[in-house]
Amino acid sequence: MGLSDLVLVSPKKFPHTEAVAMASGADDLLETATVCASLPEALQGCSLVIGLSARKRELSHELIPVREAAMRAVTLAHTSKVALVFGTEMSGLSNAELDQCQLLAMIHANPGYSSLNLAQAVQVVAYEARIAALGAEANEITVSEDAAKLSSHEEIEGYFQHLETTLIEIGFLDVKEPKRLMRRLRLLFTRARLQKEEVNIMRGILKEIQKVNFLKKYEN
Amino acid sequence: MGLSDLVLVSPKKFPHTEAVAMASGADDLLETATVCASLPEALQGCSLVIGLSARKRELSHELIPVREAAMRAVTLAHTSKVALVFGTEMSGLSNAELDQCQLLAMIHANPGYSSLNLAQAVQVVAYEARIAALGAEANEITVSEDAAKLSSHEEIEGYFQHLETTLIEIGFLDVKEPKRLMRRLRLLFTRARLQKEEVNIMRGILKEIQKVNFLKKYEN
Repeated sequence: MGLSDLVLVSPKKFPHTEAVAMASGADDLLETATVCASLPEALQGCSLVIGLSARKRELSHELIPVREAAMRAVTLAHTSKVALVFGTEMSGLSNAELDQCQLLAMIHANPGYSSLNLAQAVQVVAYEARIAALGAEANEITVSEDAAKLSSHEEIEGYFQHLETTLIEIGFLDVKEPKRLMRRLRLLFTRARLQKEEVNIMRGILKEIQKVNFLKKYEN
Repeated sequence: MGLSDLVLVSPKKFPHTEAVAMASGADDLLETATVCASLPEALQGCSLVIGLSARKRELSHELIPVREAAMRAVTLAHTSKVALVFGTEMSGLSNAELDQCQLLAMIHANPGYSSLNLAQAVQVVAYEARIAALGAEANEITVSEDAAKLSSHEEIEGYFQHLETTLIEIGFLDVKEPKRLMRRLRLLFTRARLQKEEVNIMRGILKEIQKVNFLKKYEN
């Protein structure tokens, strides 16, 4: 998700082959990870510390949704260090650890189930951080309509003409009552945003139908 | 994350103790999961099918960010069935499986790393669906697609079958080399999101073509 600064606080086993296996390709992150003896040591120099919590705590900090936390983190990260703090798989963050945080963020899970696995929670937070960092860019994908591939207005009109003629020839379109059918078909194909190659295919099919129909008449 | 309808397509081992252990508390989801023999069977009755893809495919559907996909899914899910389709851990969705989808959604991962684990991808998508659902409640998003008008998965598959048969009958589709043409046509009509009435019109045209073709042969 684009995060690169991993800090581990007194890990039970590290480095460890299991961690490398689980990293599936991201072992460079493990290699450059920093190991600290305590959380305060890990947080040195951070100007915003966001802790992840599955639930509302009794004496609580400001508790905000992960999406908002990610946006605050990314905004500040342009100019200073921000930490996202996760507790252990079994018990999350202790009260002493929470006290080191300035903000608590939570993931809106279904209240009927216990909290997320640590890996899942980290994934969601890292994902929100990435989307926040990408900003507007992220939501304007690249849906990549390749303009060069799209058919021109004349090409599409040529297709509609060809379609109408063919439908009349095979007797599907009644010339006396033609309007609604062609409008519907136009709407359908307009929504599809036909590419040049697709217009060629569709017209190829129409030609084949016309040939079949011509042969039928000729035989008659 | 609040999703409750899990469908497994020909799972290797299911039910299985490992699955229950991994579900950590959500074993009710496994107990009520449906097992299907094929993807088309799993998708019956769905009016929107969204596939998850880690990359842009060559002959591709509309590709949108997961956040937008989740919003579309949740909006439509108020009135009809929507499927989120995930491939296997090892290879993702096959081309044949992608062809059953109407939309492709992607997670903006760091392009320098290989795709997410399946569990992580599912987590992100489920999270976005939950946030979209919670948001929709608050904001009462306006329903843009009239679900009642949209054709179901079976209706669209029925149309594609009919189209393929007709193209073979009139000699446009060579059975020995059929694949690329049908994939292209599927993509075209999938982009258009056919309505029930449009499927009826298109099949009406196909019937007329078949009649013309039959008469030609009969005359011969």
